[in-house]
Amino acid sequence: MAVIVQKYGGTSVGSVERIGNVAQRVARSWKEGHKVAVVVSAMAGETNRLIQLVHHTCEHPNMREYDVVVSTGEQVTIGLTAIALEAAGIPAESFMAHQIRIITDSIHSKARILDIESSRLKASLENGKVAVIAGFQGLDANGDITTLGRGGSDLTAVAIAAALNADVCEIYTDVEGVFTTDPNICSNARKIDRISYDEMLEMASLGAKVLQTRSVEFAKKYSVPVHVLSSFVDKEGTYVVKEEPAMEQVFVSSVTYNKDEAKVSLRKVPDRPGVAARIFSPLAEAEIVVDMIIQNTSREGFTDLTFTVPKTELSRALEIIRPTAEEMKVAEVLTDEHISKVSIIGLGMKTHAGVAAKMFETLSQEGINIQMISTSEIKISCVIQEKYTELAVRALHDAFRLGEEGGAVGQEKG
Amino acid sequence: MAVIVQKYGGTSVGSVERIGNVAQRVARSWKEGHKVAVVVSAMAGETNRLIQLVHHTCEHPNMREYDVVVSTGEQVTIGLTAIALEAAGIPAESFMAHQIRIITDSIHSKARILDIESSRLKASLENGKVAVIAGFQGLDANGDITTLGRGGSDLTAVAIAAALNADVCEIYTDVEGVFTTDPNICSNARKIDRISYDEMLEMASLGAKVLQTRSVEFAKKYSVPVHVLSSFVDKEGTYVVKEEPAMEQVFVSSVTYNKDEAKVSLRKVPDRPGVAARIFSPLAEAEIVVDMIIQNTSREGFTDLTFTVPKTELSRALEIIRPTAEEMKVAEVLTDEHISKVSIIGLGMKTHAGVAAKMFETLSQEGINIQMISTSEIKISCVIQEKYTELAVRALHDAFRLGEEGGAVGQEKG
Repeated sequence: MAVIVQKYGGTSVGSVERIGNVAQRVARSWKEGHKVAVVVSAMAGETNRLIQLVHHTCEHPNMREYDVVVSTGEQVTIGLTAIALEAAGIPAESFMAHQIRIITDSIHSKARILDIESSRLKASLENGKVAVIAGFQGLDANGDITTLGRGGSDLTAVAIAAALNADVCEIYTDVEGVFTTDPNICSNARKIDRISYDEMLEMASLGAKVLQTRSVEFAKKYSVPVHVLSSFVDKEGTYVVKEEPAMEQVFVSSVTYNKDEAKVSLRKVPDRPGVAARIFSPLAEAEIVVDMIIQNTSREGFTDLTFTVPKTELSRALEIIRPTAEEMKVAEVLTDEHISKVSIIGLGMKTHAGVAAKMFETLSQEGINIQMISTSEIKISCVIQEKYTELAVRALHDAFRLGEEGGAVGQEKG
Repeated sequence: MAVIVQKYGGTSVGSVERIGNVAQRVARSWKEGHKVAVVVSAMAGETNRLIQLVHHTCEHPNMREYDVVVSTGEQVTIGLTAIALEAAGIPAESFMAHQIRIITDSIHSKARILDIESSRLKASLENGKVAVIAGFQGLDANGDITTLGRGGSDLTAVAIAAALNADVCEIYTDVEGVFTTDPNICSNARKIDRISYDEMLEMASLGAKVLQTRSVEFAKKYSVPVHVLSSFVDKEGTYVVKEEPAMEQVFVSSVTYNKDEAKVSLRKVPDRPGVAARIFSPLAEAEIVVDMIIQNTSREGFTDLTFTVPKTELSRALEIIRPTAEEMKVAEVLTDEHISKVSIIGLGMKTHAGVAAKMFETLSQEGINIQMISTSEIKISCVIQEKYTELAVRALHDAFRLGEEGGAVGQEKG
């Protein structure tokens, strides 16, 4: 008898009928004798409807009140899900954040979970009930409602699984698991059976949409085994787990891409101490996330500085940078929105040389120019022209044999 | 500087634009220096939408979960109202039942308010903020959400006013106040300026829809002055207050009608002790509210028994009664759904004779047969054929001169 947390996203609970299907699936695990806690999102479209209501009322709403409004979507779903379970003869009980004290900080609309007081939840499971929990929402120290940001229900599920010391956290979604790359681009993309937290983290932050980054961090921190699978078909999905020795054999486990960033270049920046701080501190203060930064070697006391920001923040970023650039007598501020970032990820990179070289060679063979490069222990990202994205992804997926059973496992030494 | 509670119903907050108007109205009172707490309902249509979602999921839903779902409508409105106030430069803060501990019993979907822990609310008002409170919802001793039943937001407003010891509880609605009768039937119906709790109570339970009965009971119990007025025009409405000496001068203050009841007659019931109990106890157990009951004088050991129940409960009532009637060898069970109850209400009846006689005479002059009569200290109700309802209301409204300034005040001795 296991303790299982199951999370169903907006599409899985998108209609009363689908909620009925979710109830059937939950019922199956419950009838097998497991203790089941279910975390649900708002019905598909509902959170957007609520956000629109808010923005129709005021363009820059009070965020405490924003959270009060947008957290109602999940409340509707827990009630309906519990009703559907009860109707199917399964004792069920719904819980909101204030009832099981999912305590967060007070950063409205992107709060972080600090603690979960799990006793009421545990009592409910001990009494043989299915606990149905509202995802996405929390409660701060003042007793005010908070929300966790987009994809926050994943985080709720992982945090609940950690609090219950669950055997597994099942994330039900509309895809069959985590793939070697986007199947819409690469027809031979393969579902990955097992992947490490670190690889999943890189994938999530580099563009794969299947799991929210913070939920993976949380799962890693508390060693929560996560199982990503489809709520529409009956198949094993992808297990996201602690690093296993076999995983190091895989040089590259996936290829991701991200078209959401824009490039900013400052030409002829005086190369003096403190220059980077003058440029990047105000951006940080404005909470604009700068991703990649490249500084060329200095020539005659000047350097070029290039970095990327989210496209949605580009105009705000320029407003902040331009006055500083003028003060510093920077020659030119250039921008480029037609870029994309293509990345390869794999635990095996840590111990195998030559992976980067192979990536650059592959792109070069396709005639794709690399504009920026950034690396970590387990990933390499290249910024290229946006129009080459699909070509690059397919070429890399093939070059590292990700479409083949066994993938890029020890078949070459780079 | 007064403490004012303002309650806005579903029509008044029916759209983002109307919520903006509500914010303007609240702002006016706040700018006059008053402490303002605002109670809001769900946006018009929203509660019905939620109830339909529930019933689409399950015909006989778990009521704990029903309340979880239907209470979200008010949560959306408080968030939007607080946002609209903040946008207008008025500091505001929304509160749900669990945040200000509106404690109720655990009768889901028709809970009763037991207590309000008002300290957080008072602190908010002390800090110069407008407190925006979700109507209709409560919290039981288990920390579960409850709802107060249709019109429950009126009750929330009055209870909040009692807890804050407010100077007035303003109920904003889509009519201009309480009228001497339904203006749709009587073109010369007049708005009443001041009315006693007891008269308002009778009016509410006899068919006037303007205030929920339980909220009037609550207002009376805690002596909360209630002001019923329109949110669309700028005019004094009707004050519902403690009995005042001048009120006793008014024989009749209003005429109401109710077409929602059906009549059940049992012919030739054996007239033995315990018979009434055998008939009415099972109805009470099934929570069917029996309104009027009439038993004729006994003839040869038999009597006729007639009573009314809500039309919506008629078929359930018959299912319960028929077996008992057969056991008791009752000659016949007759039903009539085409009845209506017309009532006159007035504090002056207590001290003035002849009001009943005048009512009967008026109906008789119009050729209307009276089928049943019931009286209390301050009201007389007659059951008549449904088709005569409007005729009866107009005749009574004229007979007691309710369309005239000053109304039926001491102008005759009956």
